[in-house]
Amino acid sequence: MNDYIDPIAKLINQFTKLPSVGQKTAQRYALSVLKMNDADVAEFASTLLYAKQNVKYCSVCGNFTDIDPCHICSSRDNSTICVVCQARDVLLIEKTCAYRGVYHVLGGALNPMEGIGPNQLNIRNLLSRIKASTKEIIIATNADVEGEATAMYLARLIKPLNVKVTRLAQGVAIGSDLQYTDEVTLGRALENRKEI
Amino acid sequence: MNDYIDPIAKLINQFTKLPSVGQKTAQRYALSVLKMNDADVAEFASTLLYAKQNVKYCSVCGNFTDIDPCHICSSRDNSTICVVCQARDVLLIEKTCAYRGVYHVLGGALNPMEGIGPNQLNIRNLLSRIKASTKEIIIATNADVEGEATAMYLARLIKPLNVKVTRLAQGVAIGSDLQYTDEVTLGRALENRKEI
Repeated sequence: MNDYIDPIAKLINQFTKLPSVGQKTAQRYALSVLKMNDADVAEFASTLLYAKQNVKYCSVCGNFTDIDPCHICSSRDNSTICVVCQARDVLLIEKTCAYRGVYHVLGGALNPMEGIGPNQLNIRNLLSRIKASTKEIIIATNADVEGEATAMYLARLIKPLNVKVTRLAQGVAIGSDLQYTDEVTLGRALENRKEI
Repeated sequence: MNDYIDPIAKLINQFTKLPSVGQKTAQRYALSVLKMNDADVAEFASTLLYAKQNVKYCSVCGNFTDIDPCHICSSRDNSTICVVCQARDVLLIEKTCAYRGVYHVLGGALNPMEGIGPNQLNIRNLLSRIKASTKEIIIATNADVEGEATAMYLARLIKPLNVKVTRLAQGVAIGSDLQYTDEVTLGRALENRKEI
C-alpha cells in the first residue's frame, strides 16, 4: 500500500490512527507536516505531549479538566445534573447559555452490539451523586436508538430515588422547513405540541 | 469559538494547521488523541519530529528522500525524465510499474493568480539536467488549466534543446461509461483516436 521512504511511511501510519482518517488523507497530512518549518513541527509534537499530560478526567463528573474537581463542578449549582454521553456534549450545552447546573459524562451510550453495557458507562458514580438536595436529572443523550435506550435505562434507575427526571425536548428544529422534516420528528412534534 | 481548557484548545489549534481541517474535525482529532494511551501519544509526537528531521529533498530531482541523491536518481536510466508537479505524483506513477526512468518534481504548477510563476518552480534545475544523453522529457502535470499551462510552458522551453517532449495521453478513463464522460474529454479522445 505504502511505498514512501520510512520516515514518511511512519508519519502516515500515525495519522491513520485519528478517527476517519484513511491512507489518502493521512498522506496529505504527512506531506503538509513536511512542508511546515522545523519550529512549527516541534511545537505540534510538544503540544501533543502537553495536552496528553495535562488533561485529566474530573473525578466528580467525568468531564475533561486540568484541575480536579473541574471548574463547573466546583462553582455551579449542583441540585441539577445534566447527563451527557460525551465530554464534547458539555461544550455544546454550555454554548447555549441556557443551563447553570452541573454535568455528568457517561462516556458513551448503551450499545449491546458493540459490547457497551451499563458497566462500561460511568453510571455508578452518577447514582452516588444523587443526594437529598438533588432536584432534577436532565438526560441529554442523543436522539438516536442508543441514546434513547440509555435515557430509558437511566430514568428507570433514577425515578425510584424520588428525583425528577427530564429529557431534552424533541421536535422541529428552529429555522427548518416542515417540507424537509422527517415524519418521525414531525409526529413527535405533534404529540408534544405546546399551547401558545 | 473555542471554550475548551487550555491544553485541549492548544491541541485543537495545532490540528487546524493540517490541510482542510476545520474547527470541528480538529476537535474530533484532539479528543481522540486524549483517549489514546500515553505511549501512543509519545510515539505520535516523536514520529512527527523524526519524519521532519530525516526527510530531505533530493538535490537532483526534488523528490522526498532520506539519502541524497535519492534511490531513484542514483539507480535508474536517466535518459528519460518524467516531470511532475508534486512529490506525491512520483509515487502514483511508480505504482503503475510502467516507467523505469527518473523524475523531476516542479513543486507546483504555474498559477499567476496565486503568484506562482516560473521562478517559484524547480524549472532551472530541470533545464540543467538536460544533457546530450537525454532522449525524452515526459510532462506528467495535471490535466487542469494550471497543469496544461505548465506543460505548454515547459515544452516551449525544452523543444529548442532538441529533446523529444511528450505529454500523458488524454482520453476516456479505463472502465468508464461513455454516458458519464464529460464532452471535453470525449472530444479529446476522438481527436486522439488510435488505430487498432
